[in-house]
Amino acid sequence: MILVDYAERMNRATRAAADAGLTGLIVTPGPDLTHLCGYLPVPTERLTALVLVPGRAPRLLVPILERPDAEGAAGTSAVEVSGWSDGSDPYLALAGLLPGGGRFGISDSAWAMHLLGLQRTLPDTTYSAFSESLPMLRAVKDAAEVELLAAAGAAADATFERITEVRFAGRREREVAADLRDLLIEHGHSQVDFTIVGSGPNGANPHHEAGDRVIEDGDMVVLDFGGLKDGYGSDTTRTVHVGEPTAEERKVHAVVREAQQAAFEAVRPGAACQDIDRVARAVITEAGYGEYFIHRTGHGIGVTTHEPPYLVEGEHLPLVPGMCFSIEPGIYLPGRFGVRIEDIVTCTETGGRRLNTTDRGLRVVA
Amino acid sequence: MILVDYAERMNRATRAAADAGLTGLIVTPGPDLTHLCGYLPVPTERLTALVLVPGRAPRLLVPILERPDAEGAAGTSAVEVSGWSDGSDPYLALAGLLPGGGRFGISDSAWAMHLLGLQRTLPDTTYSAFSESLPMLRAVKDAAEVELLAAAGAAADATFERITEVRFAGRREREVAADLRDLLIEHGHSQVDFTIVGSGPNGANPHHEAGDRVIEDGDMVVLDFGGLKDGYGSDTTRTVHVGEPTAEERKVHAVVREAQQAAFEAVRPGAACQDIDRVARAVITEAGYGEYFIHRTGHGIGVTTHEPPYLVEGEHLPLVPGMCFSIEPGIYLPGRFGVRIEDIVTCTETGGRRLNTTDRGLRVVA
Repeated sequence: MILVDYAERMNRATRAAADAGLTGLIVTPGPDLTHLCGYLPVPTERLTALVLVPGRAPRLLVPILERPDAEGAAGTSAVEVSGWSDGSDPYLALAGLLPGGGRFGISDSAWAMHLLGLQRTLPDTTYSAFSESLPMLRAVKDAAEVELLAAAGAAADATFERITEVRFAGRREREVAADLRDLLIEHGHSQVDFTIVGSGPNGANPHHEAGDRVIEDGDMVVLDFGGLKDGYGSDTTRTVHVGEPTAEERKVHAVVREAQQAAFEAVRPGAACQDIDRVARAVITEAGYGEYFIHRTGHGIGVTTHEPPYLVEGEHLPLVPGMCFSIEPGIYLPGRFGVRIEDIVTCTETGGRRLNTTDRGLRVVA
Repeated sequence: MILVDYAERMNRATRAAADAGLTGLIVTPGPDLTHLCGYLPVPTERLTALVLVPGRAPRLLVPILERPDAEGAAGTSAVEVSGWSDGSDPYLALAGLLPGGGRFGISDSAWAMHLLGLQRTLPDTTYSAFSESLPMLRAVKDAAEVELLAAAGAAADATFERITEVRFAGRREREVAADLRDLLIEHGHSQVDFTIVGSGPNGANPHHEAGDRVIEDGDMVVLDFGGLKDGYGSDTTRTVHVGEPTAEERKVHAVVREAQQAAFEAVRPGAACQDIDRVARAVITEAGYGEYFIHRTGHGIGVTTHEPPYLVEGEHLPLVPGMCFSIEPGIYLPGRFGVRIEDIVTCTETGGRRLNTTDRGLRVVA
């Protein structure tokens, strides 16, 4: 049980908004709202929005029938909650909580219908998505959050150790995926978000989940799994081999491992996100596989499994101690096999710290 | 197994867009995309969008690493799929698929960050949410869809019959909610979306889920539950009483039942959505409880459990045969108890047809 100072989180976000030149923030249901005031409604066609404006107390607008839930949430005691009724105009109600004009940050995943309603109601106000104008909102974790991520990572690592003991050859991908799911739950996850088992040619499709293919002796198998434990995410990938790997399979795996290690070693405060991507990509490109590394090197992780910072070409955001993100280069040979190695890493004052610690070598399974 | 003609669905949507004066449609992950081309990616920060423009073939833009999944989806064989790579600008890529300027309909739940990206890239193009500019996109169900909704309703009805046989007094709300969940699954649901058990004063909060309160003899208990069966939604509410109800409890229940029946009888092609709401509200207001009916009368249902048409004051959309929606008036007496009665109803040529058929009388449970 961690006691969160939601009022302080909202204060900090409001100050960050001012520093970023924003008039204020409009926060809609999803991870931002959960993070800032501990309120977790499902996003729907009915508008719910937290408004943070420097110099004013936080205000939360909700459908009137959800007001009791909103007032009872973990972090809304210092928030003034108001309700709008079905049949009235929620955008007019929200406009009443905003100073006229200015530029607001808005949650990335706010519904377009709500943004359009606001734009129609307040034509002189402009908006920008948090990931663009305030990417740091949830990107820097405090020490307690880092330890929650480390605990989720440890649970994923324990899952990996156990999965290497199960039978692969002769079983379907979805059976191994079910094992992964059960093991994550057994190790304390409350929610499993993905259990990718990409065997043989399926491993060459990075977002292949798990299908009916029967895993065979001689297959490379990409295992990428994660979810939430105590509200924080896990996400790790290891690539294993059923039986003895060929020389080429060993080589591709070694290149990815080297790229992952080089990117990890490049983590330090002040390095730009895109630099970490470039380091991983350079190793793979020099080995002749550049065209087969078809995704960014990583993404932030926290109360969601995909959030800023993104380790991608064009992202100039500098790393800051407390940021937590995946480093997950891969090589995907169409029709043949894929290899990906992924650890969650946090940036510390002195460099990177891995939150996944299982062996990154090419493990042989049965 | 129902064979869906996705190409025809996309054609129909494209024609409807033209009829509504739109240049075209931008469809993002969620129920619209599932409905139109059978592709079900999770909405994320990576842009995925189907573009439908009259006179042009459908185009689907996806993150390049998800291209194999997109091309393999149930309804994308007639769709030209293109990919964008991490580190490139997805909005520029999407702009390349759009004619310059004009007005596009966009999925209600498209992420604000994606809409803002498009607005920045194409400042001369305007957008409106489907629920505003094209509410009929998924609102009228074909005969096969109505039967799928009827089957989901029958499963929910069977669940209700079974739940009235369990013990209520002395058990916690969340235990009864767990029973509801298990029964929905047992009756063929693949997904349970909500299992509201609002006992005593908790019933006066319409969106109370289920908590630790121990249900007592003498409690009214609102049971509102549903989810997806074979891809289509169920959503029904019955209010039961533990032991003998008081005269007032009987009266409030009878008023809600009468309001529900009157609204049902008002269903006919051409009636405005708001008229159905008004009919239910008039019954409750005349009985002196108008201020305690604090939500709209209903919402559409299909591949989601909340979608157009909305039965709410201000919604002038006329009912059309094939529309399916809830009729769910309620009375909520703060601190005391609540009553809600909800059936899914479909509009036919001759009036309403209930897709829930369990007795709407006040059932006494143990």
